Amino acid sequence: MKKSYETLNSMLERSMALQTSLILFEWDNETLAPEDAGSYTNRVIGVLSEEYYRIMTDDEMGNAIEACEKEDNLSDLERAIVKAAREAREDLICIPSQEYRENAQLVADAVRIWTKAKKSEDFDSFAPTLEKVIGFKKKFASYRKKDDQKLYDVMLNEHEKDFNSELLDEFFSQLKKEIVPLLKEITEHGKEIDVSFLTGGYPVEKQKEMAEFLAKYLGFDFKKGVLSESAHPFTTNLHNHDVRITTSYHDRMDSSMFSVIHETGHGLYELGIGDDITQTSAGQGTSMGVHESQSRFFENIIGRKAAFWEPIYGKLQELYPDKLSDIPLEQFVEAINKVEPSYIRTEADELTYSLHIMIRYEMEKMIVEEDIDLKKLPDIWADKYEEYLGVRPDKASKGILQDIHWSQGMFGYFPSYALGNAFGAQLYYHMQKEMDFDELLRDEKIDVIREYLRENIHRFGKLKTSRELLKDITGEDFNPDYFIRYLKEKYRKLYGLS
Amino acid sequence: MKKSYETLNSMLERSMALQTSLILFEWDNETLAPEDAGSYTNRVIGVLSEEYYRIMTDDEMGNAIEACEKEDNLSDLERAIVKAAREAREDLICIPSQEYRENAQLVADAVRIWTKAKKSEDFDSFAPTLEKVIGFKKKFASYRKKDDQKLYDVMLNEHEKDFNSELLDEFFSQLKKEIVPLLKEITEHGKEIDVSFLTGGYPVEKQKEMAEFLAKYLGFDFKKGVLSESAHPFTTNLHNHDVRITTSYHDRMDSSMFSVIHETGHGLYELGIGDDITQTSAGQGTSMGVHESQSRFFENIIGRKAAFWEPIYGKLQELYPDKLSDIPLEQFVEAINKVEPSYIRTEADELTYSLHIMIRYEMEKMIVEEDIDLKKLPDIWADKYEEYLGVRPDKASKGILQDIHWSQGMFGYFPSYALGNAFGAQLYYHMQKEMDFDELLRDEKIDVIREYLRENIHRFGKLKTSRELLKDITGEDFNPDYFIRYLKEKYRKLYGLS
Repeated sequence: MKKSYETLNSMLERSMALQTSLILFEWDNETLAPEDAGSYTNRVIGVLSEEYYRIMTDDEMGNAIEACEKEDNLSDLERAIVKAAREAREDLICIPSQEYRENAQLVADAVRIWTKAKKSEDFDSFAPTLEKVIGFKKKFASYRKKDDQKLYDVMLNEHEKDFNSELLDEFFSQLKKEIVPLLKEITEHGKEIDVSFLTGGYPVEKQKEMAEFLAKYLGFDFKKGVLSESAHPFTTNLHNHDVRITTSYHDRMDSSMFSVIHETGHGLYELGIGDDITQTSAGQGTSMGVHESQSRFFENIIGRKAAFWEPIYGKLQELYPDKLSDIPLEQFVEAINKVEPSYIRTEADELTYSLHIMIRYEMEKMIVEEDIDLKKLPDIWADKYEEYLGVRPDKASKGILQDIHWSQGMFGYFPSYALGNAFGAQLYYHMQKEMDFDELLRDEKIDVIREYLRENIHRFGKLKTSRELLKDITGEDFNPDYFIRYLKEKYRKLYGLS
Repeated sequence: MKKSYETLNSMLERSMALQTSLILFEWDNETLAPEDAGSYTNRVIGVLSEEYYRIMTDDEMGNAIEACEKEDNLSDLERAIVKAAREAREDLICIPSQEYRENAQLVADAVRIWTKAKKSEDFDSFAPTLEKVIGFKKKFASYRKKDDQKLYDVMLNEHEKDFNSELLDEFFSQLKKEIVPLLKEITEHGKEIDVSFLTGGYPVEKQKEMAEFLAKYLGFDFKKGVLSESAHPFTTNLHNHDVRITTSYHDRMDSSMFSVIHETGHGLYELGIGDDITQTSAGQGTSMGVHESQSRFFENIIGRKAAFWEPIYGKLQELYPDKLSDIPLEQFVEAINKVEPSYIRTEADELTYSLHIMIRYEMEKMIVEEDIDLKKLPDIWADKYEEYLGVRPDKASKGILQDIHWSQGMFGYFPSYALGNAFGAQLYYHMQKEMDFDELLRDEKIDVIREYLRENIHRFGKLKTSRELLKDITGEDFNPDYFIRYLKEKYRKLYGLS
């Protein structure tokens, strides 16, 4: 290893170790930590975050990066890591340490205040805190922005490089034009689908058995991974040999099954990161959007197909004979694909999901770029739900306060959920040229699909952006048409619309 | 806060946060982490340990400590923290960073090599590694030792301040003189006690229910604590609002019950640490010996008493009607107190336990002070077991390789287990002057006992050493007579010896 790179590398190892410890604290907090530990453990987390900030903004780090940038015999990987270090440093060093600390404290408080406000259905008690969070978020974006970049675009780029609101406007306007009317048509003229048999009488112990089976069936390696329980399902990882997914169990049985399939999709991505890049700054999924493309690929595109269930539906019937022995496969597959406009994003079906995201996208732009009066947010929210989904929430927990994201200052994050759907569909149409999905699924050859994704996406980690991946795989830049086409084809057929 | 103290405090917060993260990694590794994560996560742990070493040995820390030592208006607590910081720094700074790193790496390897050697019953394959571990251990002790201190005393002091081999020689020689003959008398002339009904037919699910019940019954606060499962039961804590205990479940039902009671004893100690000192260098149990005094107090002195079981034995019978409904309380209490010379320390009963420790103590002194040929260790071990316990191990896993400690370089640690027993007995005889244990236990008033221990021991954390605690509570220095008396009284009676 070259001397200058070695110096940088050992500093990056220190910052990486701190980040890994923060990930472990977060995991622990969501899955196990006792109720009253919060404020004490938060102190520790605060100190570790500052330690990370200290290393990244230290002059020594700046000098090491500069020395590496002058080096001309670095490998491609080394160069990518130097570039990532430069970017991570620049994102931090432009923020005064005092403000960095204040914001971290504010966000910790904000989550608590949001939780309380949601419980008491009281948006007004959260609004002043939200205003402060937005204030910091905009200030930080103004420190980070380049040239005449929009503040909201800076926020978008934190989660998805190479994207901006221009591209997203185009994407969402197509969604609005095509999917809002399709949803109306389905609710007005589509056939009735019964889902009542999916609820009640599914013991948690059996749901757990099924969850483990599904994760294994998709190829989740339990020697390098863990499946636990948490209030909200999520995936995290310490490195490519320690990837953790969670689910939660409810009365409605398909909820835990599809959350496990979803999280397994995330998990397979992180398990597929190359050994050469794990524990480096390139050793994670490249973006939230690509991550969601993988989770939703498994959850929706594959996991809700009849062919996926053909070989394993018998197992499900055996597990729950009282509930499912009289339900034929076709009826089960229809039920798990039912479209139903609803209030809550995390419970939304595949078709309406992106409309939930569209609403948040439109509102985030208003909040960030138009300086809107926050008191009006609940009404704007309700109006948009009524317009696009045909339902009007009557309380904050079902509306404006349902998501934790804004309290954490995560503006610009929501669009990635919808982008993930679109990336997945674009991949799907391309992959069909090379493989017959129905045949593979019927033959239980999920490994062929998984290996394709590993080979073309997972192993690269952050070495390629989402648009680079799409270009390299499909030969085409990001193109949302595939997603629209996918939804229209699938749901017109399901609902018997011509 | 005074300026100089503030500076020191913020550096100590950083080192404390790193230590807390290391504790979390250890917890995670023992309870959950996937099998293959090891070497990757160890890299992270290595970097975090070095970060801790870096902060503690930095000149800035040295200057901050010196400035505080010159300050004359510090509170008692602040002075104690400065002193602890000085000691922790001196323990580290005398070791060259290169050797510190080499030793950490060696210990990680040594544990792996020990695990393998134990599995293949092959001490010789471990001996060269053990020799290196001992080499480092002795070298570090020679860096740390003061004046004409013995190397083994330096190691003892890492776990128990104010103790040395002179005090321990006296303690163990009394044990040898009194308990070895008592054991012979029991095995030769004591009555037969049947324990067969304690094994088999105890479903793990029910054992879990009992484990949770017992922890709660003793006052373990699940809002500030967690009970999990691990191969070897242990207790750890992030601070006084996050204390974690584990147990493991076996065919023999009393195993998990008494490991939970034992770990709850440790847990109550850490939960009882004062809010004013948690998350400072004084905010932990003061020593391994005092910790064991608490765990064994609950496990043996209280937990194996008839009066403890009187109010709750009915619950146990209800839980396992097939097994226990015909077993009267007296028979159950006899069984859980049965004395049985055995090979394995962790499975030993209350009477023989300290003899297992005595053997290790005698061997550690030989290893450290007499430069003994390591190849002879298995035979020396077997000879001592034969002499003191009347059993001779025929393989390494039942003998010299049973414990992990030496592979981790933990010499000087074992004696604390026996000291804990002795501290507990000394406390017990003193507390009897103030309370009637049998009456309290029959009335389910364990809180009175727990509060006494909290008030007199727990809340002080490291602010008092073990000998200071004993002195302040009982008015007497450490006195092993109580332990000998306790064992003799209890077991002569149990076994019907005059």
